[in-house]
Amino acid sequence: MNPHGADRVLLGHGSGGSLMHSLIEGCFAGAFEMRELLDSALIEAGGARLAFTTDSFVVSPVFFPGGDIGELSVYGTVNDLSVAAAEPLFLSAGFIIEEGFPMDDLKRIVDSMSRAAVRAGVRIVTGDTKVVEKGKGDGIFINTAGIGFAGATDLSPRKIRAGDVVIVSGEVGSHGIAVIAERNGLTFDPPLKSDLKPLNGLVKAMMPCSEGIRVMRDPTRGGLATTLKEFAMASGLRIRIRESEIPHLPPVRGACELLGLDPLYAASEGALVAVVRPDVANYLLDLMRAHEHGTRSRIIGSVEEAGPAAGTATAKGQVVLETMAGGERMIDMLQGQQLPRIC
Amino acid sequence: MNPHGADRVLLGHGSGGSLMHSLIEGCFAGAFEMRELLDSALIEAGGARLAFTTDSFVVSPVFFPGGDIGELSVYGTVNDLSVAAAEPLFLSAGFIIEEGFPMDDLKRIVDSMSRAAVRAGVRIVTGDTKVVEKGKGDGIFINTAGIGFAGATDLSPRKIRAGDVVIVSGEVGSHGIAVIAERNGLTFDPPLKSDLKPLNGLVKAMMPCSEGIRVMRDPTRGGLATTLKEFAMASGLRIRIRESEIPHLPPVRGACELLGLDPLYAASEGALVAVVRPDVANYLLDLMRAHEHGTRSRIIGSVEEAGPAAGTATAKGQVVLETMAGGERMIDMLQGQQLPRIC
Repeated sequence: MNPHGADRVLLGHGSGGSLMHSLIEGCFAGAFEMRELLDSALIEAGGARLAFTTDSFVVSPVFFPGGDIGELSVYGTVNDLSVAAAEPLFLSAGFIIEEGFPMDDLKRIVDSMSRAAVRAGVRIVTGDTKVVEKGKGDGIFINTAGIGFAGATDLSPRKIRAGDVVIVSGEVGSHGIAVIAERNGLTFDPPLKSDLKPLNGLVKAMMPCSEGIRVMRDPTRGGLATTLKEFAMASGLRIRIRESEIPHLPPVRGACELLGLDPLYAASEGALVAVVRPDVANYLLDLMRAHEHGTRSRIIGSVEEAGPAAGTATAKGQVVLETMAGGERMIDMLQGQQLPRIC
Repeated sequence: MNPHGADRVLLGHGSGGSLMHSLIEGCFAGAFEMRELLDSALIEAGGARLAFTTDSFVVSPVFFPGGDIGELSVYGTVNDLSVAAAEPLFLSAGFIIEEGFPMDDLKRIVDSMSRAAVRAGVRIVTGDTKVVEKGKGDGIFINTAGIGFAGATDLSPRKIRAGDVVIVSGEVGSHGIAVIAERNGLTFDPPLKSDLKPLNGLVKAMMPCSEGIRVMRDPTRGGLATTLKEFAMASGLRIRIRESEIPHLPPVRGACELLGLDPLYAASEGALVAVVRPDVANYLLDLMRAHEHGTRSRIIGSVEEAGPAAGTATAKGQVVLETMAGGERMIDMLQGQQLPRIC
């Protein structure tokens, strides 16, 4: 038996939740230098302080309401750099294409990447194309790696303190649910679209108050719940959020009810969650709301000391949801695979 | 009909040869900033002059004589940076794994990457894992992107001049033929193994004479023939090579005869070809031969003015092979797909 609990790779190992964490800890962490579960690595190269990140995109279908795999592969990596408070500069693009993939679809995806790069202000400067036999891939997979300029701001969930405030930049969960709905042939009125967009502009708008930001993340795979659980575990504190304050678009709620999904675990690709110092929370909210991608920013909760919880020895690393009904619910990481291949 | 001549992606579009060139020119070049067909992009980030590159690895089988996909994914990217005269520093690693892939194989591959990174002196600092459903991938695909420190040396095939000399660092074609032989269940005595190894040490040893190097490349997909054809086309000159001087290991020749393959088009993953100024060729050969990975370095040809050739208006961009039999043969890029999925 393997230390990570499974002798074969499961879909859930790529879900962003607890299985992926066990894979990272059991397989990758010892071999590579990814000590913290951050979206970007901070590196020093040639005297420059840079952020470096990578993501492979295997979303199915490749065209979905609100975007496509090309745009997603650009904004996904731009956003991973952005939430590290880095300014995205350069991207690489690696394509793995299944034999027989329509050339027009490839062209459409590449054009979409090109437009996305212009919109986000980054340059795609190097690339690679591999083709695999029919049946050995699934249309197209795209990897992007990104390099950003990292300023003095050093964010980490270990910097979180009791009393801090949790902010989201807008509705969460739209991307994952839009992809799943498309895959299931569901349509909504008003239409349910991915929130896919670049976050570097919003983050730049927040930088006048950068010293008040403890950590940021774009809650993709595993959703808001998994991101907050990671923050709570890394800080050893307890995070308390209020369900009534967490913004989801009505079609996201509707689709989740229909499909039996929890929107707290659904991916966003154009929202960020930040834990910030309480004394600057309102200033940051003003900065965020003044940016087109942050108009609906709001506080959804706060951080507490992890004193002993009822029935347990400690509340370290807990996330507590105050439900609309007035109760409390413990939030864990995504277990297994709720939504495979949403990015 | 699409401008790049096919309405669906073919295996040959990933082969490194003429179809891939038409795909790059017809689809990627206009959309991205990959103006030259170089293995690495040169970028300026935070005041530092860096090289940036990416490669996806889809080799089948993932374990082959002389290495595995993990090692290949590290050395492949290390070598792309090295032949740009950059010092490889940091790598990212993106995994796309098919559901059901044995966890022990994953662990073995990851350990192999870790050892390869140590051997090449690079750090794997950021990563990503995606899992696709059984039948939607093929075991494991790995993308690596790499960042290197680029010195003052600026290499380009456009710097090639008539009179220059063509050097290879050792036997070529072993990697591609070893993978194909393994796939076909062929064994050889002595065994045929991939030449997979990091080239940054060898390139570092050549740097005392860096000003004499016009361009370097590790001839992977498409082999030595395709690399030289690219050099000839970019420079507008003619390259003449002598078959008798091109080193192939005996089992490579044997396997090629058996399989009907041309070793000139077979990939190397641990050899480099350099075009150098004639006055420093012997000094460079001395430097290369003093390094463990360059002991068998030799001159295989030279560059000529592209005067009018017999029967054609011009000889610009031609590669001429002087055969062992005393004749001449025009060398073109790899057409279609000789060896799919060898890297």
